[in-house]
Amino acid sequence: MKRIFQAFLFASIFSIVVHAQNETGILDMDEIRTPVKRKNIDIPGFGGYQVLKCDFHMHTVFSDGNVWPTIRVQEAWLEGLDVIAISDHIEYQPKSDDVKTNHNRPYQLAKDVASERNIILIKATEITRQTPPGHFNALFIGDASGYLGERATNENDRAAIQKPIDQKAFIFWNHPGWKATSVVGSYEWIDFVDVLHKEKNLHGIEVFNGTNFYKKGLDWCIDKNLTVLANTDVHGVIGYEYQLGNASRTMTLVLAREKTEAGVREALEARRTIAWSGKYLAGKEELLNNLFHACVKLKPAHFTRNDRSSYEISNESDLYFELKLKSGNGTEKVFLHPHSSQVISAKTGQKGLEYEAVTSFVRSDKNLVVEIGLK
Amino acid sequence: MKRIFQAFLFASIFSIVVHAQNETGILDMDEIRTPVKRKNIDIPGFGGYQVLKCDFHMHTVFSDGNVWPTIRVQEAWLEGLDVIAISDHIEYQPKSDDVKTNHNRPYQLAKDVASERNIILIKATEITRQTPPGHFNALFIGDASGYLGERATNENDRAAIQKPIDQKAFIFWNHPGWKATSVVGSYEWIDFVDVLHKEKNLHGIEVFNGTNFYKKGLDWCIDKNLTVLANTDVHGVIGYEYQLGNASRTMTLVLAREKTEAGVREALEARRTIAWSGKYLAGKEELLNNLFHACVKLKPAHFTRNDRSSYEISNESDLYFELKLKSGNGTEKVFLHPHSSQVISAKTGQKGLEYEAVTSFVRSDKNLVVEIGLK
Amino acid sequence: MKRIFQAFLFASIFSIVVHAQNETGILDMDEIRTPVKRKNIDIPGFGGYQVLKCDFHMHTVFSDGNVWPTIRVQEAWLEGLDVIAISDHIEYQPKSDDVKTNHNRPYQLAKDVASERNIILIKATEITRQTPPGHFNALFIGDASGYLGERATNENDRAAIQKPIDQKAFIFWNHPGWKATSVVGSYEWIDFVDVLHKEKNLHGIEVFNGTNFYKKGLDWCIDKNLTVLANTDVHGVIGYEYQLGNASRTMTLVLAREKTEAGVREALEARRTIAWSGKYLAGKEELLNNLFHACVKLKPAHFTRNDRSSYEISNESDLYFELKLKSGNGTEKVFLHPHSSQVISAKTGQKGLEYEAVTSFVRSDKNLVVEIGLK
Amino acid sequence: MKRIFQAFLFASIFSIVVHAQNETGILDMDEIRTPVKRKNIDIPGFGGYQVLKCDFHMHTVFSDGNVWPTIRVQEAWLEGLDVIAISDHIEYQPKSDDVKTNHNRPYQLAKDVASERNIILIKATEITRQTPPGHFNALFIGDASGYLGERATNENDRAAIQKPIDQKAFIFWNHPGWKATSVVGSYEWIDFVDVLHKEKNLHGIEVFNGTNFYKKGLDWCIDKNLTVLANTDVHGVIGYEYQLGNASRTMTLVLAREKTEAGVREALEARRTIAWSGKYLAGKEELLNNLFHACVKLKPAHFTRNDRSSYEISNESDLYFELKLKSGNGTEKVFLHPHSSQVISAKTGQKGLEYEAVTSFVRSDKNLVVEIGLK
Repeated sequence: MKRIFQAFLFASIFSIVVHAQNETGILDMDEIRTPVKRKNIDIPGFGGYQVLKCDFHMHTVFSDGNVWPTIRVQEAWLEGLDVIAISDHIEYQPKSDDVKTNHNRPYQLAKDVASERNIILIKATEITRQTPPGHFNALFIGDASGYLGERATNENDRAAIQKPIDQKAFIFWNHPGWKATSVVGSYEWIDFVDVLHKEKNLHGIEVFNGTNFYKKGLDWCIDKNLTVLANTDVHGVIGYEYQLGNASRTMTLVLAREKTEAGVREALEARRTIAWSGKYLAGKEELLNNLFHACVKLKPAHFTRNDRSSYEISNESDLYFELKLKSGNGTEKVFLHPHSSQVISAKTGQKGLEYEAVTSFVRSDKNLVVEIGLK
Repeated sequence: MKRIFQAFLFASIFSIVVHAQNETGILDMDEIRTPVKRKNIDIPGFGGYQVLKCDFHMHTVFSDGNVWPTIRVQEAWLEGLDVIAISDHIEYQPKSDDVKTNHNRPYQLAKDVASERNIILIKATEITRQTPPGHFNALFIGDASGYLGERATNENDRAAIQKPIDQKAFIFWNHPGWKATSVVGSYEWIDFVDVLHKEKNLHGIEVFNGTNFYKKGLDWCIDKNLTVLANTDVHGVIGYEYQLGNASRTMTLVLAREKTEAGVREALEARRTIAWSGKYLAGKEELLNNLFHACVKLKPAHFTRNDRSSYEISNESDLYFELKLKSGNGTEKVFLHPHSSQVISAKTGQKGLEYEAVTSFVRSDKNLVVEIGLK
Repeated sequence: MKRIFQAFLFASIFSIVVHAQNETGILDMDEIRTPVKRKNIDIPGFGGYQVLKCDFHMHTVFSDGNVWPTIRVQEAWLEGLDVIAISDHIEYQPKSDDVKTNHNRPYQLAKDVASERNIILIKATEITRQTPPGHFNALFIGDASGYLGERATNENDRAAIQKPIDQKAFIFWNHPGWKATSVVGSYEWIDFVDVLHKEKNLHGIEVFNGTNFYKKGLDWCIDKNLTVLANTDVHGVIGYEYQLGNASRTMTLVLAREKTEAGVREALEARRTIAWSGKYLAGKEELLNNLFHACVKLKPAHFTRNDRSSYEISNESDLYFELKLKSGNGTEKVFLHPHSSQVISAKTGQKGLEYEAVTSFVRSDKNLVVEIGLK
Repeated sequence: MKRIFQAFLFASIFSIVVHAQNETGILDMDEIRTPVKRKNIDIPGFGGYQVLKCDFHMHTVFSDGNVWPTIRVQEAWLEGLDVIAISDHIEYQPKSDDVKTNHNRPYQLAKDVASERNIILIKATEITRQTPPGHFNALFIGDASGYLGERATNENDRAAIQKPIDQKAFIFWNHPGWKATSVVGSYEWIDFVDVLHKEKNLHGIEVFNGTNFYKKGLDWCIDKNLTVLANTDVHGVIGYEYQLGNASRTMTLVLAREKTEAGVREALEARRTIAWSGKYLAGKEELLNNLFHACVKLKPAHFTRNDRSSYEISNESDLYFELKLKSGNGTEKVFLHPHSSQVISAKTGQKGLEYEAVTSFVRSDKNLVVEIGLK
C-alpha cells in the first residue's frame, strides 16, 4: 500500500470467492480490486468559458495542517478538482520543532505530482494577522522566503502584506467573520481592508470557508466588484473533516477561457467566479443565471389534459437547485438533485414560470430568480 | 475546519433549506451538521476474552508516510479500532530534508490524542533490512533513539535487530512474500528467521499486509506456534488507499482479557489473534471456530413441510462468512453478510449440517469447517 | 428472475471480469452474485421482553394498493420486520373491475410465504369511513367476509365497526389528523371515538402514519392508556415510497414475552409498544427510558486532565438518539448514530449528567430526559 | 403515503431536529423531505441518434408477476428508462382465481400514467410455449384478446405465433438458453426458429435476460442480422430482485432518430441496438465502437518526462469500460467507471494505443477492440 496513485479499490465483500494464488504462494487480492478513480464533477460551461473547480486555501504539516503536501494533490485528483493552492501560514508554524521552516517547500514538494495528475498548483501563502484585520491569502506569489513573518503587533499588519503586493499577487480576505462572535466589531468592513481595496490591493473575499457562509462578504463582493471565493481551509484529511455524503467539498467555480494558470488568473481578476458549498451557490446574478440555464433543461410539453401540461425538467450537472414558484401557474416546488429529472406541470398557454432558486444567493438577502420558458 | 475531533458531518444536500443566520450575519451551516462518529465494529467475544481491533503497522511523515502521527489516531477512532502501533522505519527517512529525524517523536506526538480518544497506542518501529531477510516490526519498545539505523550490509542485519531483542520487544516478520516475484527464493523460511525463531526472538508473522494474503505465513504460524498478524502498512490516508466499500480495513483481532496495553501483550504472546482482511479470516482452527459460533446463531426450526424444515441463521457481527455445504442434506450455499440473516432449509430429523467456511482459513490450503446443530 | 426469495445481488460493477461460461454456452452471471439478505434491526430487549419490529397497516391490489400480498412479506423479510398485518380496505376496492373482491384473500395468499420466512402475519382489515370519524384498523380478526362494507352514511359508521368488536379484534384509530387541514374539526377527540373508548372497544392510536407524526395522538394515548402505534400505510413499493437512506421504515416496536401471535397480542393489550419513525421515537416515559438504557452504554472514564474526564458513550442499536445537556457540567450535544460511539467529557467528580433526548417524545410537548451516570 | 408519484425522500436521519408543527397539531415530517427523483442515465448519442433506454420484457399480476402495471411505469421513471413494454404471458395466468383474465388490461391501466411521465409504453405480450421452442415476445401488437392462448401441444406452437405475425408485430426469441441445462438440445438454433427467421418473422433475440448472458444468441444476431435485446423479465419488484448497487438494471439501448414509438420501431427494425447488463455490453462491432468513442474522451498530453507522456482519459457516461492493452507501449489496464477519469501514460511519439474492451462483446468469443489516438 505504498504509492499514492496506485491505491486500489477493494472488491466488494459481496463478490464471490476467487482464489488467485500465484506461483509464490501469495494470494494477491489485488486481482479482485480495481484502481481508485477520479470522480468527474459535471458542470457545463457557458459563454465560451469552461468551469474549473478550485480550492485556494489549504494547509499541510509545513504550518498547522496534518498532511504532507502531496496528499493535497491526491485529494484534489480523487475529488475532481482542477486547481489548488496550498496556502500555509507565514506567521504560524506550530510544528517547527519537527518540520524545518521553509515557505517554499509545500509548493516544491507537490509541484511534480500535480503536473503528472493534470492539477494546476498555484503558489500561495496565508498572511496570518490578529483578528482584526484577520487573515489574507495571496495567490501567484514568487519567492515565499522573504515574507515578514513576525507575529502581529498591529503596527506591522500593513508591512506584512507588502511583499505579496510587490509580487503582484492576487490577494483575498479569508473567512471575514471568523471569531466574529468573540471579537467585537470584527465582522465589519474595517479600515485596514478599506485601504487595501482603495489601493486595488484587495481582489476578493471568501464567501464560503469550509461550511461557513459569510453573507456580508457576498454583499461586499457585489457592491465593491470583488471576486467571490469558496475554499475549504482544510487542515486534516478532507475525507474525514468533510463527510459530505453526496456533496462535493466547498470550492470556487472559476469560469476560465482555458485550463492554464494564466486562464485561472485572468478569470479571477475579471471576477468570473461562483462560490459553492453543499447545496448553496453564491455570486453575481448574471453568472448564476447563466450557470443555472447551462445546467437545467426543460423539454417541450409531453402531455396535456384539462388545460394543464406536463414537462420534463432535467438537471444535467452535479450541482443542486431548489426552486420555489414566484409567478405563474405551475408546480410549487421543484427539487433538482444532481443528474436527475422531475416532471412539472403548468396551466397550458403560459409563456413561462418564474421561480426563486432558494439555494442560490445573489446577495445576503436575495435569491436568484430564474425564468423557465414553456414550449 | 481546524480541530481533528471536531470535524462535522455535512447535512445531506437533500434536506430542506434552513436559514439559521446568527446576529453577526454569518450563515453557520454547522447548525445543519452533526459530529463525525466512531463506527462500532461489532464482534462478540468468547471464552472470557473480548475482541480488540488492532493495526500494528503504519507510517507517518517521520519515515515514508504522508500524514502527521495524530491522523493515525483520528483514523483509528473513526474506524472503530482499539489499538494501534505507529512503526516508522528506522533505516529509511526519505523526508529528512524537511522532517528532523527523531524515532521517538511519532509516539510522543500521538500519545495524548490517543489517550483522550481511548485508543491504546503501542510504541513500535520497523527494522527495515534488504529483502531477504526483509522487514520486522518491534512492538512495546523503549527508547527508539539508539537503534542501529545503518542501511543493510547483510553483515549487520542481525545487529540491527538486537536492540528490540534487548528491549524485550514483541517482534514479527512483515509481509514475508513482499518482492517474492522479483527476488528469487525470498518467500521461504530463511535461515535468518529460523535462527530468530529458535532463539525465541521471533513472535509472529504478518499473514495479511494491506490486501496481500501471505498464505505460507499462515502455515508457518500454525506449525511453529507463532502469532498471526494482519496490518495495513498504510503510508497515505487510509480512506484513500483502502476504498473498501463496506469492509473494514485490514486488522488483527486480539482476544484479550482486558483492554489495556498489558492485556494486548499477554494475548499476543499467548498467540490469541485472528487475522482479518476484507472477507477473509485466518488463524488457528479453534479460535476461528469459537469466533464463528460467537457471531452466527441458528434459531430453532420455525416451519416444516414435506420432511423439510426451515431455520433462520443470523450473523450478529460485522464479519462476513460464506458457507458451502460439506455434509448433511440442507441449503448448499449460505452468504452471511454483516448484521444480516438468511433462511436455510434442511431435511427434517438430522442432528446438524457441516459447512466449509470458504473465506476462513486455518491453513493455506484448508478452510474452517463448522458444525451447525439443528434443533 | 422469477422467484421472490431467490432474488440475487449483482456483483459490484467494480469487480474484475470473471468469465464463467458453462457447457451450454450461457454466461451465467449469477456466479458472481450472492443472495439477497435480511437486514437485522438491532434493538436490545429489556425487562424480560424482546423487541419485535411490526407494521400493522399495509395495502395490496385487493384494495387500493399496488402489489400482490406476497410482496408485503418479501419487503418485511428484507427489511428485518418480525410481524406484519395486511389491512386492505373493506369499503374501498378501486381495482374491483380486475381483482375479485374477497376480503380473506390477502391473508390466505401471504400466509405460507410468511410462515416459511418466519414472519408473523396477523389477519387484519381497515374499516374505512368518511372523515370524521375516519379509518380504523382491526387486528386478529376472524372471517373477513361478513363485514358491512357499505360506504359511509354517517348513520352506519357504528354498524361498520360492530363486526370486529364481535370478533374481539384489537382496534386502533388510524392517522387521526389525516385531512385535518381540509376538514374542520376532524383532528379532535371526537364523540364517535370517545364512545368506542369508553366501551373499551378502542385500543390504540397511530401516532406515526408514514412520516406524519400525530402529536395529539400521543397525548391521547398517554392520558387514556391506549397503545401507541406506528405504521407505514404503504400502498406502493416500500422501497420507492420511503427512500429512507439509512433509516428503517416506520414501525411499531412491540415489547413481547415471545415471538408468537399471542405474544404480540398480549403486548399490544398491555400497551407495551414504542412508535418509531426515522429518528423519532414516541411512547410512555418508562418504556422509552428503559429502551434508551438498553441501547446506550457509557464506559468508565478513560482519561482525566485538569479536572475534566473523558468517557466513551456507545449506541449499540439501530436507533438514533440526539442528546442536549439539561443539567450538570459536560458535553453540550451528543449525536448517537446507529452502531456508533462518541467521546464526551465532564467535570470530574459529578455523579451524573442529565440530558434531554430531543428526538424521543413522551408527550407532544415533552422529550424524554435521561440520566447518564458517571463512573 | 398514497400516490405513486408523490412519494417522498425522508430527510437524512443525520440532519438536525426541525419541529415544524402546523396549526392542527400534526408534525408533518414531509417538510424535511424532498420528492423522489428520476435518475438520469447519461449515455451520449452519436451519428444523429439518441440513446433510448428500454426494457421490453416485464410481468404484472395479470400473469405471473407480483405488481400492478402502474408500478412498472413508476420503476421505469425512477430508474431513468425511456421505453417499456409490459409482456404478460398469454398462456399462463396463475392468478386467475383472483385477477380476471384480460390481455389488454396491463396496457390500458398503465397507458395514462406512462404518458404523464413521458415514458413510451409499447403494447406487447409473451407467447409462452414449452421449451423448445420456448418463449417469444411480440411488440407493437394490436388487440391482445384474440390470441390462441392454449397451452402447448407442439402441434399448435406455430398457430400460437400467427396472430402477432398477422399484426405485424416485432417478434423476438426470449432467453434462448433458459432450461438449457435440463432440456437436452434446447439451446440450439432449432427448426422452429429457423423457419420463423426465414419467413422474416423473427426479428431479434434476448442476449441478456436478467443477469444471464446468452452468448450464442449474440453470435446468431451477428450472423443472421437480428436485433440484440437485453431485458429484465422482472416479476417482482425491480429494486428487490435486482440489488445492483451502482449499476442500472439490464436494458436495451436503442439508437433512435427520435423519442417516439415510431422512432423505437424504426431503430429496432434497423438493428440499431446494444444490449447492456451490469458491466457488460453486447452488440454489433460498429455500434459498440461508436458508443465507446461517444462516451470516452482522451485529452491531449499534459505532462511528459523521460520519453513518457501522461494523458487524462475520461468516461463521460454511466456505462463501464474495462480496457486491456493490446498493442502499443502504454498503461496496461484502464478501469473507466461511470463519470470518472484516469491518468494513463504512454511512450512519447506513438500515434495511438490499441485496447481490448474486455467487458464489451461483439461475438461470444470476441471483445471490442478500440483505438485510442494520442495527441
